[in-house]
Amino acid sequence: MSYPTNEKNQAIPQSPAVSRQVKTRLPRYYRYLKELLDAGIYRISSGKLAKMMALTASQIRQDLNYFGCFGQQGYGYNVKYLFAQISEILGVNDKLTAVIIGVGNLGRAMAQSNIFLSRGINLVALFDKSPELIGKEISGRCIYDIDQLESYLAEHRVDVAVLTLTSTQAQAMAKRLESAGIRGIWNFTNVEIPKMKNVSVMNVYMGDSLMQLCFDIRQKALESDT
Amino acid sequence: MSYPTNEKNQAIPQSPAVSRQVKTRLPRYYRYLKELLDAGIYRISSGKLAKMMALTASQIRQDLNYFGCFGQQGYGYNVKYLFAQISEILGVNDKLTAVIIGVGNLGRAMAQSNIFLSRGINLVALFDKSPELIGKEISGRCIYDIDQLESYLAEHRVDVAVLTLTSTQAQAMAKRLESAGIRGIWNFTNVEIPKMKNVSVMNVYMGDSLMQLCFDIRQKALESDT
Repeated sequence: MSYPTNEKNQAIPQSPAVSRQVKTRLPRYYRYLKELLDAGIYRISSGKLAKMMALTASQIRQDLNYFGCFGQQGYGYNVKYLFAQISEILGVNDKLTAVIIGVGNLGRAMAQSNIFLSRGINLVALFDKSPELIGKEISGRCIYDIDQLESYLAEHRVDVAVLTLTSTQAQAMAKRLESAGIRGIWNFTNVEIPKMKNVSVMNVYMGDSLMQLCFDIRQKALESDT
Repeated sequence: MSYPTNEKNQAIPQSPAVSRQVKTRLPRYYRYLKELLDAGIYRISSGKLAKMMALTASQIRQDLNYFGCFGQQGYGYNVKYLFAQISEILGVNDKLTAVIIGVGNLGRAMAQSNIFLSRGINLVALFDKSPELIGKEISGRCIYDIDQLESYLAEHRVDVAVLTLTSTQAQAMAKRLESAGIRGIWNFTNVEIPKMKNVSVMNVYMGDSLMQLCFDIRQKALESDT
């Protein structure tokens, strides 16, 4: 695996101690820089980027310095270069592959979206237990019998499993995937999959953002009451 | 609107200056406390709750004190009471209503899930522009013509609009909803809806958590390389 270097050819620090906040911001940098590139903007100051992203300029400089991405005094950041760096740090160039486990509405929505492709990930297969679905295709990917999961994973390099199956099956499925050597689980089942030694886990709780929204609505009402 | 009070009948501070971190943690408290209740656990120490939630006991005490939820020295927290308090703070008892705008796979998945009901929100209608969908029902909710949006919102109290329509229509739709007096937008379109004065906005970027997962996978690989 090649190690990214900065413009001065220094290795980019890849400390596992990256703070949770910085880690959360990286995909945001990726999104904003992509937008800038798409708009044909190739230079940006930390101040302007900060304003776009509702951060402070010093926060931006700190975050990016941390990864060895230095702006040029008076010239700002080279957007194309910075985007390439952040892409590298986020593993966009690692050609990861993914499978979807559970072809309900959410699994289907994922399979039909460009959420994987636009991040350099190749969605290779889907799995379900329903006989009506097995053997069908969605966006060119075959739906396999969940009983074939282990044999499929033994024959194909799969990095990420997307869990969009029933909550009650989440824990057992995570164990199966761990045994089969999966590297990452993107979990939408609303059941928390605990940390595993060799598997990265990202639990997504869609309901949490809904509750935050309700909280905000309530706060606005209380503010306008006072 | 009744104002929540703590056991000593003091008003719970509802400062708009709640930190982003605390706000993010509130829905997690809600989830964990609900799990405890479902498991028949009615007392918990801050230490145990902290362990479950991978926080520190002092963080828990700080967060909950902030909202006027005090534990009893030596007895810990009353789970039922705490759950009721957090529910109140999050507006679960406010009987909010919601509509879904855009009945693709994601909109359909939302409509068929219990994501609204389990948080006290009543999903009342769906909207789409496709003639094949208009007039149909999903889980007992009618799909209306998007052209009827304003008249529907004028006749029914709707608090939250869920945006699951095409990205290109997101901005224009947010403006329409703002004009129609919506209170909150839960946005899944991947286009950032900027803050609005009278509307709470929660932009959800599903791809961001995927990128965080890829970053974690990469970190694990780099760690095991060294």
